[in-house]
Amino acid sequence: MATLKELAEAVGGTVVGEENVEIRNVAPIEVAAEGDITFIANPKYASWLARTGASAVIMAGEGHGSDKPLLLTPNPYLAFAKILGLLRGQRPEPRGILPGARVAPTANVAEGATVHPGCVIAEGCSVGSGTILHPGVVVYENAIIGEDCIVHAGAIVREGCRLGNRVIVQPNAVIGSDGFGFAPDGGKYFKIPQVGTVVIEDDVEIGAATCIDRATLGTTRIRRGTKIDNLVQIAHNVEVGEDTIIVSQVGISGSTRIGRHCTFGGQVGIAGHLTIGDNVMIGARGGVAGDLKGDQVLSGVPVMPHKEWLKASMSFAKLPEMRKEIGRLRRQLEELEMHIKKG
Amino acid sequence: MATLKELAEAVGGTVVGEENVEIRNVAPIEVAAEGDITFIANPKYASWLARTGASAVIMAGEGHGSDKPLLLTPNPYLAFAKILGLLRGQRPEPRGILPGARVAPTANVAEGATVHPGCVIAEGCSVGSGTILHPGVVVYENAIIGEDCIVHAGAIVREGCRLGNRVIVQPNAVIGSDGFGFAPDGGKYFKIPQVGTVVIEDDVEIGAATCIDRATLGTTRIRRGTKIDNLVQIAHNVEVGEDTIIVSQVGISGSTRIGRHCTFGGQVGIAGHLTIGDNVMIGARGGVAGDLKGDQVLSGVPVMPHKEWLKASMSFAKLPEMRKEIGRLRRQLEELEMHIKKG
Amino acid sequence: MATLKELAEAVGGTVVGEENVEIRNVAPIEVAAEGDITFIANPKYASWLARTGASAVIMAGEGHGSDKPLLLTPNPYLAFAKILGLLRGQRPEPRGILPGARVAPTANVAEGATVHPGCVIAEGCSVGSGTILHPGVVVYENAIIGEDCIVHAGAIVREGCRLGNRVIVQPNAVIGSDGFGFAPDGGKYFKIPQVGTVVIEDDVEIGAATCIDRATLGTTRIRRGTKIDNLVQIAHNVEVGEDTIIVSQVGISGSTRIGRHCTFGGQVGIAGHLTIGDNVMIGARGGVAGDLKGDQVLSGVPVMPHKEWLKASMSFAKLPEMRKEIGRLRRQLEELEMHIKKG
Repeated sequence: MATLKELAEAVGGTVVGEENVEIRNVAPIEVAAEGDITFIANPKYASWLARTGASAVIMAGEGHGSDKPLLLTPNPYLAFAKILGLLRGQRPEPRGILPGARVAPTANVAEGATVHPGCVIAEGCSVGSGTILHPGVVVYENAIIGEDCIVHAGAIVREGCRLGNRVIVQPNAVIGSDGFGFAPDGGKYFKIPQVGTVVIEDDVEIGAATCIDRATLGTTRIRRGTKIDNLVQIAHNVEVGEDTIIVSQVGISGSTRIGRHCTFGGQVGIAGHLTIGDNVMIGARGGVAGDLKGDQVLSGVPVMPHKEWLKASMSFAKLPEMRKEIGRLRRQLEELEMHIKKG
Repeated sequence: MATLKELAEAVGGTVVGEENVEIRNVAPIEVAAEGDITFIANPKYASWLARTGASAVIMAGEGHGSDKPLLLTPNPYLAFAKILGLLRGQRPEPRGILPGARVAPTANVAEGATVHPGCVIAEGCSVGSGTILHPGVVVYENAIIGEDCIVHAGAIVREGCRLGNRVIVQPNAVIGSDGFGFAPDGGKYFKIPQVGTVVIEDDVEIGAATCIDRATLGTTRIRRGTKIDNLVQIAHNVEVGEDTIIVSQVGISGSTRIGRHCTFGGQVGIAGHLTIGDNVMIGARGGVAGDLKGDQVLSGVPVMPHKEWLKASMSFAKLPEMRKEIGRLRRQLEELEMHIKKG
Repeated sequence: MATLKELAEAVGGTVVGEENVEIRNVAPIEVAAEGDITFIANPKYASWLARTGASAVIMAGEGHGSDKPLLLTPNPYLAFAKILGLLRGQRPEPRGILPGARVAPTANVAEGATVHPGCVIAEGCSVGSGTILHPGVVVYENAIIGEDCIVHAGAIVREGCRLGNRVIVQPNAVIGSDGFGFAPDGGKYFKIPQVGTVVIEDDVEIGAATCIDRATLGTTRIRRGTKIDNLVQIAHNVEVGEDTIIVSQVGISGSTRIGRHCTFGGQVGIAGHLTIGDNVMIGARGGVAGDLKGDQVLSGVPVMPHKEWLKASMSFAKLPEMRKEIGRLRRQLEELEMHIKKG
């Protein structure tokens, strides 16, 4: 619980109206009731300001003359996220190594960490202060997990991989699985040992059941601040730049380098050994087969400018009619030629 | 083991021929032998009736004059499924909390439940009678699992999520992972705490490694009877209606509402904040970018009526030839114009 | 550490130059330093031969007059893979059943096996010599795991499934989850018990979070030497031939039979009840809706010869322009007809 004034101070906003109103919770504008704070990030919800049951509203601008207590800030969505964390996201107290966790003698678990039952931490590992390993997390030899990380149940971090600070790993994610590399040997395939590692930098989030393969040699790297959704495949030796958003079920093939501040929609596929520039947005299901310069918005297979793709997609359903019309034109033209030659 | 008569009574069918024949197993018609019952659900297998080695055959209709013992029922496939369960699908006796499972003091595990080694059940949880938690299942605080559920090994149920009765969760599925929500903060992203939950209603099945994200606020909900295959992504705040079939590798983006009795083929992708009506079938790999009314059969990207899509797909390979033909028509037409003007 | 001579003998190559040079590691040609061996498998890297800091180079041909110690072999990439294994891939000594593993009384774990903490092995299972089960692996009743397998953390092998020898299973893979089969019962669905199993033959690799469903009746089978990447879905009753490569996020629907020595690119989808011949290559994202004869290179949806697909894909972006041009042709042709009729 906090007063509106306290929340405004915490997020750097200003209060209009009663600043001592007590806020216990955050709720969507349609269902918010007394004690809730809500937010208007999209102007289409502005008409709700007069109707919402919330005790206060986070919004941009000047409040449009309402007598509802307001928290004004240029980025209401960000303020909402921060206030939600303040009111609901308290981190539990560190609890140390709990009974039923197995930590190898040479592993170093910092005092402020929490290691839940069913975790197995191998020789030579390091787990930083403030980090929580939920039940069933497995950390192979010599892996390093930084400070204030949250590694959810069933996630696996294989040998020698490194997580920075404040990394969040959702349940059953896999970091450091073998890259998919085989040398043809006649008609058979010989496994290429995958002896590299994975480095996950600070403030990265890895989604549930997402797989990030270790490098053959060297490092698969996810740079600071990048957020990866569920069921994503990152192949060996890939590098992803800072602050990039990768939505669910995307696949990135081996050795491709992704720039910073990119956004890839769901189910996008990117071929191997490519270089993708900074600030590239690829719409859901886009397929990338070649290098891409930065600062583009693309869609389709292979990707093209998003607007071109929208038009081409619209035309796709017309293909059968186009074929018929081409046939009609052909016949009419030939009749006309015959007519002229006869004439 | 059962007699044909007993099986017919169990599934509500009628016997033609020897009703005391003993049935020990179910087998496909091509390989069935003495002691097996088999079924004909598809008329193209009717000719097998005279040839099969099975001791009895489940089928619709009147038996076509065979002297093979028959179990007649209007829905042979359903009867096959039920008989398979009767003969092979016995549930094991409940075994309680087995050694090597860790159940928090305030968790409530019903007497008729089975909790296998390696499970971790946190404070405030509840597990209903008849439910089986296979090894390595992790249940976070205050989650509720109903009666007669089967939760397979490695599945994770996060804090506050609820499963109804008779829910089946395949191995390594994840229920209640954080939704993928971030507020832009300059060029960086600030994590929006995901404080909602997931509700899985009665008789739902969740496939292996499928991920169902918790809501930001409120509830991600899978309604009664819906069946979800492996490696499916259900994002935060999605609602899926009753008796819907979602095949493997489908992705459904945040806040989308799906109707009842829909069927989505493999690898379908559905954008966020959409409303899909009841009885919508979407063919494999379909991509949905807008709201859809009910009672449609669709395919393609973006989806169109399935029959249109079939025709358009056929035409796709003809595109290069169509372009050439358009070029030829252009040249011929211009020659003709020249000819006429000269003439 | 080994001498170049020893490595050449191990992989069946010949040395040109100093054969006693000591090799400690393998490195990419751009970063290799003293003590490293590197390789040239692609002629475009040939110019690096004079520049690399490596102590020796694996390559085909005759060495192009360099004085760098060379290991000549017709298949440098294969020799690289083998040498990497020799220098870096040592298997750890077997350690038996470690504290914190739970092995049922009737399970048979061979003496040379290693079972890590957190593993649960059920009644009637068998684990062969040389096999390593990493932490948190769960093996259900009567499953059989052969010799010299590596089963990584969190992988699940369900009841009655069988793994051959030298099988590698990456973390959180699922073998033997229920097939996705339901009999319609009015508007609801009745679960068809999935009482078959999965057989994984020798030398197969299964990727992280990949799911291989058990058969309804009978067997889902992955034949010898096949390599499957991460997040792949193999449905019930599928059979995959020998030495086939299945890249990440591929989905194969139920009862489909795949030939030997096929290669499927990332995110390929294959419908159910199909037969795919030997030596079929399908490019990334290809969609297969019908049977395919062997010895083809295909792409697209539905698949077509890869070269046709490349051309058709190029034309896709031209669709709006093609529609316009067809309209222009129509108008010009009609004007011409009018002109002639008037004239």
